[in-house]
Formats: sequence, C-alpha cells, structure tokens
Amino acid sequence: MSDASSTDFTVRPIGRVESPLTSTSDAPRQGDEAAPDAYLVLDSDVQAGLDGIAAGDEIIVLSWLHEADRKVLRVHPRGDLSRPEAGVFSTRAPSRPNPIGLHRVRVLGIDGARVHVSGLEAIDGTPIVDLKPVLGSIEER
Amino acid sequence: MSDASSTDFTVRPIGRVESPLTSTSDAPRQGDEAAPDAYLVLDSDVQAGLDGIAAGDEIIVLSWLHEADRKVLRVHPRGDLSRPEAGVFSTRAPSRPNPIGLHRVRVLGIDGARVHVSGLEAIDGTPIVDLKPVLGSIEER
Repeated sequence: MSDASSTDFTVRPIGRVESPLTSTSDAPRQGDEAAPDAYLVLDSDVQAGLDGIAAGDEIIVLSWLHEADRKVLRVHPRGDLSRPEAGVFSTRAPSRPNPIGLHRVRVLGIDGARVHVSGLEAIDGTPIVDLKPVLGSIEER
Repeated sequence: MSDASSTDFTVRPIGRVESPLTSTSDAPRQGDEAAPDAYLVLDSDVQAGLDGIAAGDEIIVLSWLHEADRKVLRVHPRGDLSRPEAGVFSTRAPSRPNPIGLHRVRVLGIDGARVHVSGLEAIDGTPIVDLKPVLGSIEER
C-alpha cells in the first residue's frame, strides 16, 4: 500500500480556451483530425511567461479536461465498442485519473495575453494549465 | 480581470519515479541528454490503466516537478546567464506556475505496476501524474 497519492497538488489554471467547439461530442479526437483554430486566453498575471513565443512556433498546450470522469481506468479506444477495452494510459481518452490534455498546436499570432493557434480539439472554456515549446534537436537548445 | 484561476483542480499522483538521480543539480536537462533508465512505480489501484502498454512502446510521462518554484515567470534558458531572460512558457524550465514535467521515454519492460523506461531526467521520488501513448499517424489510431 505505498500510497503516492497521499500528497496531492493544486493546479491553478493560467487561462482558458476560446473555441468554436462547444461540446465534446462535436470535438475531433485529436488536433490533427480537422480541429479548428482557437485562442488561448491567458490571465494577465502570467502574460510575462509568453515572452519568446512567436507566430510560426509549434507549442504544446497542457489543458485540464474538466468534463472527464477521473474514476475511469479502462476504455474502448476512440469510443469504438468493436475494439477491446484497454487501459487509459495506453490511450488518449480524456477520462483518466488526472485528466490533463496534451495538444500540439502552431502559433498563428499573439496579441497581449491572447495566443491564436491552429488545430486545437479542446472545447470552449477548457482550462489551460501550461504551455511548453516543442523541443528541436539537442544542438538547437 | 477575467480570472481563470478562480477554479482550481487537484492532482492526485498515480505513482512515483524510482531513479539513480537523487538531486536536480545532477539531473540532465532533457531525457535525450544522457538521462538514465528509471522505473515508473504506479500505485496498485491504477495498475489496470497500464493494460495495452508493452515493451518497445514510446510513451509520454507527465510528472509533477515538486521542487519547482511556481512564482517564476521568466528565466535564463537552460540556466545560462549569458542568454537573455525569456518567458517560462517558451522554455522547458521546471519552475513555472503549474510545474508539470513532460518526458518522452521508451518502455523497456513492465512487471505488474512497475514500468522500466529508458532516458528519464526526473529525479528519484518525482510524482507521476499521467501516462499517454505517443500517437502514430492518423491511419494507425
């Protein structure tokens, strides 16, 4: 009974997604499956963290998939009942113990704390918890 | 003053890293910079979520970088004082508002709830919050 979960941590969203997608049933399963352009609207108090990100960059958005069921450990991949159940950690299913979404997007432009990005499958209002650069080769770091 | 942070979320670790790295000062900056092999030791109550992951798979580990300073918004990239400061979201610096680490590793083997992986730069005891598959092409999903 080693219990790693004895220490919890608090995620404080840094902003929210602004998107034409309003329900998970309309959302594509991944960003490269015809997901629309969207805005990452950051809180003004973290805007300084955006310095160095520019149009054309590829970035990773970590979100909190707030509609997920955190008790789920097994799913039919892609919701396809003809496929056998698999563990959630072997899938990108949103329902999982810590429903953190991972989205790779391209920056189209930045206006203050608003970041315009392409191909994001998260729905309108999804909390954003982190942004990271896509790393290039070791030589470029 | 739209305040996305008015709703916080609780991350409950699903396990911990077991690694020969014991301090962040010894740890490489990225997994592909000579990071050692390590174990992901999951809690037994989430073990069912591993079904479908096998030796040879590439997976993404999300960790909680518990020694990070969450108030930091600007850093010298890679701790190099000769480089101008940049916003944390344009870097992989561990210190950031939500210190979630993103690690791409290869599975070497699985024994129950212990996952042996190659090239992980997180230190011993780092809480693990999620595992995800690296996605292949759209046709393979």
